[in-house]
Amino acid sequence: MSKEKTLEDLFHDTLKDIYYAERKILKTLPKMKRAAESEELKSAFEKHHDETEGQIERLVKVFELIGKAPRGKTCDAIEGIIAEGEEIIDEFKGTSALDAGLISSAQAVEHYEMTRYGTLKRWATELGYKEAADLLGQTLDEESKTDSALTKLAIASANARAKKAA
Amino acid sequence: MSKEKTLEDLFHDTLKDIYYAERKILKTLPKMKRAAESEELKSAFEKHHDETEGQIERLVKVFELIGKAPRGKTCDAIEGIIAEGEEIIDEFKGTSALDAGLISSAQAVEHYEMTRYGTLKRWATELGYKEAADLLGQTLDEESKTDSALTKLAIASANARAKKAA
Repeated sequence: MSKEKTLEDLFHDTLKDIYYAERKILKTLPKMKRAAESEELKSAFEKHHDETEGQIERLVKVFELIGKAPRGKTCDAIEGIIAEGEEIIDEFKGTSALDAGLISSAQAVEHYEMTRYGTLKRWATELGYKEAADLLGQTLDEESKTDSALTKLAIASANARAKKAA
Repeated sequence: MSKEKTLEDLFHDTLKDIYYAERKILKTLPKMKRAAESEELKSAFEKHHDETEGQIERLVKVFELIGKAPRGKTCDAIEGIIAEGEEIIDEFKGTSALDAGLISSAQAVEHYEMTRYGTLKRWATELGYKEAADLLGQTLDEESKTDSALTKLAIASANARAKKAA
């Protein structure tokens, strides 16, 4: 007879989900950097690539803290979000709208991460994993800052388009 | 020779993406309501179902405002997010963690909507579609309130679990 599943299992499952997602994002960021038109956006993707490495390290620590091996589990959500981003690259390559599209894809990624880290931090607190909650909270703050930086870039990129069109 | 794609095309593509997503969400919410354990969560899903109908109507108006027929386009992101939610229902049905899992799925849906509506509102403004930007902004505010309400429910649901366990 199998033991009833608990919040502990849900926490572990969601940790595996975001661990898979982060590693997928790490592989995708260099493609987004290559595709970007503006230097500002290229360096934003490079910066986020370095941050993502740190976020993966934090996840490995969280796995350790709960006594589990760091293992991913296919995350259909991030697969879908990234597939849509790749479609935008294919369809808008070489057009003036490409950077706007890349920023929108990157923000969809950030929002997925923000919701998962917000939930994981809450569950870690409920389960009494104080150190894990702190680590997850640090990443949550970083993702939220990256999202705000992308919004600023989107506005700058819109202004640049307006200037070019004038 | 095909015309170069513009921000206008990107706006239209993303509108089709969220139109597909909203209709998929409308179909999914009754399943989430049936699965939910607590009455509070059931009524939150019911309320969001009604709101989603209004949000779809607003999207239809936005299509009209840009002179296009309301048509969806498969949104891989929402398919992935909802597939993960269904997996949680299957795996945690009948356990004390089910509502926590349902709330986390619903918040992943909200965050996807928030990022898309935020982007669409910005693009509508840039393209000079003032009325469309207002409509998209109204939905953005609703999604953001729904997300906050779900966070409150998550806290209440955690407290209920703690009380039961004590």
